[in-house]
Amino acid sequence: MILIDRTSDRTLADQIVDQLAQRIKAGKLPEGSRLPSVRQLASSNEVSQFTVVTAYERLVAKGLVESKAGKGNFVARQHAILKEPGIEVAAPSLMSAEGFAHQVLATEEPILPASSGFLPADWFEGVINPAAVKRLLKPGAEGTLAAPVQGSVFLREQLSIRLSQWGVNVPPSQFLVTHGATHAFEIIARCILPPNAKILIDDPGYFVVRRQLEQLGHRCIPVPRLVDGPDLDALQQLAIEHQPAAMFTQTLLHNPSGGNTSLSKSHKLLSLANQFDFYVIEDNVYGDLANHTSVLLAQLDEFQRVFHVGSFTKVLNPGMRVGYVVPPLRFLPDLQMQKMLTVLTGSALNEALVAECLVSGRFRKHLQQLKSRLDRARVRALGALQQTPLTVVSGQADGMFLWVKLPEGESSDAWAKQAQQAGILLASGTLFSMTNSGDGYIRLNTAYAGDYQLVKFFQQMMKAKKS
Amino acid sequence: MILIDRTSDRTLADQIVDQLAQRIKAGKLPEGSRLPSVRQLASSNEVSQFTVVTAYERLVAKGLVESKAGKGNFVARQHAILKEPGIEVAAPSLMSAEGFAHQVLATEEPILPASSGFLPADWFEGVINPAAVKRLLKPGAEGTLAAPVQGSVFLREQLSIRLSQWGVNVPPSQFLVTHGATHAFEIIARCILPPNAKILIDDPGYFVVRRQLEQLGHRCIPVPRLVDGPDLDALQQLAIEHQPAAMFTQTLLHNPSGGNTSLSKSHKLLSLANQFDFYVIEDNVYGDLANHTSVLLAQLDEFQRVFHVGSFTKVLNPGMRVGYVVPPLRFLPDLQMQKMLTVLTGSALNEALVAECLVSGRFRKHLQQLKSRLDRARVRALGALQQTPLTVVSGQADGMFLWVKLPEGESSDAWAKQAQQAGILLASGTLFSMTNSGDGYIRLNTAYAGDYQLVKFFQQMMKAKKS
Repeated sequence: MILIDRTSDRTLADQIVDQLAQRIKAGKLPEGSRLPSVRQLASSNEVSQFTVVTAYERLVAKGLVESKAGKGNFVARQHAILKEPGIEVAAPSLMSAEGFAHQVLATEEPILPASSGFLPADWFEGVINPAAVKRLLKPGAEGTLAAPVQGSVFLREQLSIRLSQWGVNVPPSQFLVTHGATHAFEIIARCILPPNAKILIDDPGYFVVRRQLEQLGHRCIPVPRLVDGPDLDALQQLAIEHQPAAMFTQTLLHNPSGGNTSLSKSHKLLSLANQFDFYVIEDNVYGDLANHTSVLLAQLDEFQRVFHVGSFTKVLNPGMRVGYVVPPLRFLPDLQMQKMLTVLTGSALNEALVAECLVSGRFRKHLQQLKSRLDRARVRALGALQQTPLTVVSGQADGMFLWVKLPEGESSDAWAKQAQQAGILLASGTLFSMTNSGDGYIRLNTAYAGDYQLVKFFQQMMKAKKS
Repeated sequence: MILIDRTSDRTLADQIVDQLAQRIKAGKLPEGSRLPSVRQLASSNEVSQFTVVTAYERLVAKGLVESKAGKGNFVARQHAILKEPGIEVAAPSLMSAEGFAHQVLATEEPILPASSGFLPADWFEGVINPAAVKRLLKPGAEGTLAAPVQGSVFLREQLSIRLSQWGVNVPPSQFLVTHGATHAFEIIARCILPPNAKILIDDPGYFVVRRQLEQLGHRCIPVPRLVDGPDLDALQQLAIEHQPAAMFTQTLLHNPSGGNTSLSKSHKLLSLANQFDFYVIEDNVYGDLANHTSVLLAQLDEFQRVFHVGSFTKVLNPGMRVGYVVPPLRFLPDLQMQKMLTVLTGSALNEALVAECLVSGRFRKHLQQLKSRLDRARVRALGALQQTPLTVVSGQADGMFLWVKLPEGESSDAWAKQAQQAGILLASGTLFSMTNSGDGYIRLNTAYAGDYQLVKFFQQMMKAKKS
């Protein structure tokens, strides 16, 4: 029945699986028919019973075989493998926040992710120590326990040390670990915003948070983002006009524009927050990539009204989701409650892995490597973009984004649509803006921005215009 | 300066770390002072420069040393290690849903978790293959990529196979992977409930979901839970009176009562849902532990109005959080959007680990082991509880909970408070109930219910009464 090839690369169990699976799928072994017993198959093929048991278990996991206790193994009913959906769900448009995020996160698409929000997967090589994983999964070890709602104590200690290196001094007990930064924004919003609140946001700025806030019934008020931070004159006018409950802003390596808020602007922004009594949510998911010493709002404010949010998704490994928020202490119990009511608790395994990277020094080493890789990619990208009609507006010094301007009068939405047809993912500036301020701009991921295919696409776009 | 002991168990780098850390903490190396260069320290101690670099990196990670590029290594400012909180945040009361969940999830407390919602951590030994983790973390492998919003394709294929083994036939494309079951409830509620909706819930029943729904501004209507499922006469009256938008229920191994909804009740419940036009959220996080073949609502309804939710937290590893929902297909885009707006996406590493456990057959083997462990623990627990004044009401056949009744007139809240003082975590039935139906009952975790300390506590409680 089975042909075992002892010279094959496939294990004996795999060979049994392959051949039985093929026969079942081809209908040669009909539904409900009984397979040979373990002993029978083992002896007739001169393999161990263990090999046959392993093979049968894999066939059960594949849904091809059903094991009935005390009765034996049977070919499972074939509807067990439904691969075709009844109805295809249409993907949201690439010009919408949700469509763009879907595209970035869809690992199946064979595209050049020129505007992706993530660095290339192979840049994260070796940052997690497999030996540590093994240790964390031992019986009763951290990776096998439910995580405390506030997050692993060990991780919070490491986070406290890390923030102190930024000049932000806050004890481990004031951190709340979250399922990434987006989750932190969600629970902060649920804690501090009254119904139908108004929130100031950078414009251009991170687009998912805008949709989050709108979904919760709030209204976002765009504050023009200049190269050195928010436009404070505009901010003051908007604060007078709208009495906002909070402001959402990125101090370091602002997405998409790449700039940092200057120290004096940070000081004045917090003064306005005090004067008009609004909270500030500081999103610091990119700050680790800054090449220069910079000051965070949290350092100035010391958690009177700043909620400081960080994450390891961008810099440690996009395949885990561990973020955190440090709130003014009085909000900690409420935030914990909101975390519990949205996701119960975090992944202890992922939290322990992040803590291990921090304490072992692997994270620090990895970060240096990421930064040098970005530095090299940036040099290449800036050179390559000079051969195109695009102008780099910001991002030339550090970070993972370049904010580039198309030739006068060109629509970035139109370019993004064209790019999609060429298998290139481009983020039109309009994605990041509630006003028209993003039109004509594109956010590029520095790691991919020097790609020959991209440069060629930009050049062709201009040729097509001229002809 | 450093004393290296080459016969010690500690590595050379560890010895350097230990000794320098001790001196820094003792103030013998003052803040800002410069440490010897790598070359200097290596040669004076006859260790390799690599050893010294490693040691310095660990000291940096510990927050004790600061490395300045091109300048050397310096003793960091001592405020870097803040271990003491400014203010202690009071823990919520154990009699509240949030307080109880906190206690269950707090890994620090040295308590007997007699009513925990999780099985003992050492029961999860070996279910995750460290070799698989290593493979998943290789450059560009699944564990290092951002997960698609809908969840790993590979995992969804495995989930489809798994549900087909329950008799529920649904293609991989209809699953949405979530950060555990609680997250699934959250996003379902946000998708299907109008403002100020009324939702029928089992009473007694799972308490976190009640708080979730209330937090979102909805009202829960308790439906008495009988041994064979919801009280359908009461349900019909409540449906007429309240026009509920949905019902939340557990068909298999109901928490806390342990019972299954009978097939005929499931059929009638769905008929009522059709008649009164409400959705049904079926929570199946315990169903894997059932010893007997049972029918799910999803199997009868085929996703016309049932949202089927499952999770691997209870049965695979509490240290990861991977759940899923299968909705009526028309809700899938909305649910995806709500997932994105609450947490952006899932942990690709955790999703890939679960998929690997499923496809390798490890999960199936592990589940059999869990069930036999529970069977053995149940025999022990039922025997032990006979020596106490408590009556086991349900859970005698399968699952991880025993629902037990105190002697007539005893308050379960009072018993839980007493137990807390004795270092025992007890879940009073009142936690699970909006009416008074849970008073006088306690939910026990079968794995711990035979513990000698617990039996002694129950006996002493009665002795104290009599004397």
